[in-house]
Amino acid sequence: MRGKTFIIAGPSGVGKGTITKELFARQRNLYFSVSATTRSPRPGEVDGVHYHFISREEFEQWIEQDAFLEHAEYIGNFYGTPKRFVDEAMERGEDVILDIEVQGAEQVHCKRPEAIRIFIAPPSWEELEHRLVSRGTESAEKVRSRLARAREEFAFAADYDYIVINNTLENAVEELQAIILAEHCRPDERVDLINGIS
Amino acid sequence: MRGKTFIIAGPSGVGKGTITKELFARQRNLYFSVSATTRSPRPGEVDGVHYHFISREEFEQWIEQDAFLEHAEYIGNFYGTPKRFVDEAMERGEDVILDIEVQGAEQVHCKRPEAIRIFIAPPSWEELEHRLVSRGTESAEKVRSRLARAREEFAFAADYDYIVINNTLENAVEELQAIILAEHCRPDERVDLINGIS
Repeated sequence: MRGKTFIIAGPSGVGKGTITKELFARQRNLYFSVSATTRSPRPGEVDGVHYHFISREEFEQWIEQDAFLEHAEYIGNFYGTPKRFVDEAMERGEDVILDIEVQGAEQVHCKRPEAIRIFIAPPSWEELEHRLVSRGTESAEKVRSRLARAREEFAFAADYDYIVINNTLENAVEELQAIILAEHCRPDERVDLINGIS
Repeated sequence: MRGKTFIIAGPSGVGKGTITKELFARQRNLYFSVSATTRSPRPGEVDGVHYHFISREEFEQWIEQDAFLEHAEYIGNFYGTPKRFVDEAMERGEDVILDIEVQGAEQVHCKRPEAIRIFIAPPSWEELEHRLVSRGTESAEKVRSRLARAREEFAFAADYDYIVINNTLENAVEELQAIILAEHCRPDERVDLINGIS
């Protein structure tokens, strides 16, 4: 049985990374899509694990070959989701988890409308603000800019297949797992079995 | 939060009753829709628990008042799903489980297109045959007639929202619970929260 693609998107600071990590700790047969980037590896980052580190020329070639499901430039570096690894994983029967930005999710939705879109939302605006501030790694200005962007991103949520509220890690992961299992009960996946029966 | 309606349908002998019973044993906040019928109570049957026992006149009045989500005649008796109890349960925030025939499910789908339709399928044709025969309560002719009807009913499965294969009770109930939880992650239910945030 071919795997399915699940897009997990939401505003910066909402906890996508933590939720996704916990999902992988609990469930097998998942493939975490590793992004390609033109930025240099930081100490400890492993090629193919944290990112596929490729040159700018290679990246531009991949864009020309339509080899990305989505890509974007961020502070002078390119980031993108290579189609190839996603397709290979689905062929192996694994479900692909794309932990991406809301903008990127829109691009993937255009190219792969069958991919299931899950929006991760904070329980409240105050909570999102608190999470961004308490990281302590960013200036007040950067936090403000992230919050402004989050407001824009919320506008996309109503168009998603599912909205998962990250009130507790336990609830959020339980909902994600339910969504994945439920999507495998769709007729497209099981109608052959029915036809085989009748 | 208003509850949702889940239609659980499938061929006779597939195990809908057993699955539904186990679902209720595991999960709260569910309402089992009790049918109305014109047939006489059997020993031990309690009005309002096993059926709402009503007169033929009353039943015909309810039909006229469009008070049923679906109804049918079977061996001279009427059976139907009263709208009122379903709506009251949803208002209380309970999810309604309708354990009904495939024909009835089509009627409910027309009146309530937002109700989620789950088709319960046997793991194989042989298994369905085996289950019907091993009940030991029905003539060979009746078993044949039920199997013929099952073949017709399978044709509807592709049009359902979900297909649950009753290979083991454990799997089937786990999938049902996942579907119910996933359907509560739909944007229609959560978009107010998002709007409240942004």
